[in-house]
Amino acid sequence: MMDNRIEKQFAFSLEIDKVKNIFRQTHLSGNGRNENDAEHSWHMAIMAYLLREYANEKVDIAKVMLMCLIHDIVEIDAGDTYAYDTENLKTQKAREDAAKARIFSILPEEQALEFIQLFDEFEAYETPEAKFAHAMDNLQPLLLNNSNNGGDWKEHNVTARQVYGRQMKTKLGSIALFEVADKIIQENIEKGNLKK
Amino acid sequence: MMDNRIEKQFAFSLEIDKVKNIFRQTHLSGNGRNENDAEHSWHMAIMAYLLREYANEKVDIAKVMLMCLIHDIVEIDAGDTYAYDTENLKTQKAREDAAKARIFSILPEEQALEFIQLFDEFEAYETPEAKFAHAMDNLQPLLLNNSNNGGDWKEHNVTARQVYGRQMKTKLGSIALFEVADKIIQENIEKGNLKK
Repeated sequence: MMDNRIEKQFAFSLEIDKVKNIFRQTHLSGNGRNENDAEHSWHMAIMAYLLREYANEKVDIAKVMLMCLIHDIVEIDAGDTYAYDTENLKTQKAREDAAKARIFSILPEEQALEFIQLFDEFEAYETPEAKFAHAMDNLQPLLLNNSNNGGDWKEHNVTARQVYGRQMKTKLGSIALFEVADKIIQENIEKGNLKK
Repeated sequence: MMDNRIEKQFAFSLEIDKVKNIFRQTHLSGNGRNENDAEHSWHMAIMAYLLREYANEKVDIAKVMLMCLIHDIVEIDAGDTYAYDTENLKTQKAREDAAKARIFSILPEEQALEFIQLFDEFEAYETPEAKFAHAMDNLQPLLLNNSNNGGDWKEHNVTARQVYGRQMKTKLGSIALFEVADKIIQENIEKGNLKK
C-alpha cells in the first residue's frame, strides 16, 4: 500500500495537471493559439537557465527555475489575470492567497510550506531569484508577442507606456535583458504595433 | 544593439516555442485533450523535485529538472514517438539525432554542447540523474492515464506486459516509485483497463 506521504505527493501531482487548462492572453509564435500556464512556466524555466549570465546579482538558478515552474499554480483557482487588466488586478492577491492555501496544502506539510514560501518570495519581488524569475515572466510573452508582430497588444489596445511600466521591472532582475526588451519595444512602436 | 550571443539565445528561446505544438498520445486528467511536450516536461520537472527523496541514488536535482525540461525538444523535428509504437521506435534515434544537431546549434557553441551532452546523458540511461528523469518520464503519463481509467491504454490496445516493460525501467531510478507504479498497474488490470 502507498503510505500517506506519497499519496499526498501524487494527489498534488495530479491536481497541478489543471494548470494546463489555464489559458493566457499571449499567443504562441506563428500566430498560434493562446498559451497556457504550464507551457509559459516551462518556457520561463528554460530561458532562466539559458540567460542566467545576465542576472544583475548572483542567483541560485535551481531556485529560480523552481519558482518559474510553480509561480502560476495558484491560477488553477484564481484564473489568469492579464497584465494590463486594471480591474481584475485589484482582486488578484486575495484570489491567489485563497488558491495558494488550498492547493499547496494537498502536499505533505513541510513541502506545502516550502512551496508557499517560494511562491511568496516570488510575489514579494525582493530577492535576486524573485527579481530574475519576474524578468522571465515579463520577457517570455514579449518574445512571443514580438514574433507575432505585436498581435496581443493590438487586440487589447495596449500602449507603449503600459508595456514599459511592466518591463521597467525587468531591469530589477537584469539590466542587460531590459536593454533587449527596450529595443524590442522601440521596434514595435516604429512598426505601429504599439501605441505611443 | 543586441550582440550575437544574446541574439542566438533569443533565437533558440523562440524556436523551442514549437515544443508546445508537439502532441502526445497521453490525455490530460478529466478525460481532457491530448497533452503536448512542453506541458509534459513541465509536469515531469515539478514531480522530479517533489519526489526526489525516492531516488535510488543521490541526484543533482537541478540537473534532473533541466533534463526533464529539455528532453523532448528534439521532437520539434523528430515528432513524438509513442512508447508502444514498435515500428516508429526503430527510426526514433536517427530522427532525434538529426533534430538535436539542428536545434541545439542555434545556441552559442558552449551552450549547444551543454544541452547536447545533457540530452545524450538522458538518452544513455546510465547516470543517477538520467535514471531518475526517466522514472518521471514513465510515471507522469501513468498518473494521467490512471486518472482517466486507462483510456490511453484502451485506445491503443496496450497490454500489462507492455506497460511493465516500460515501468520496469522506472525501478532503475526509484524502487519506491516503481512500487507505486506496480500498484497502479495491478489496479488497472483488475478493473479491466489493461489486458493481461
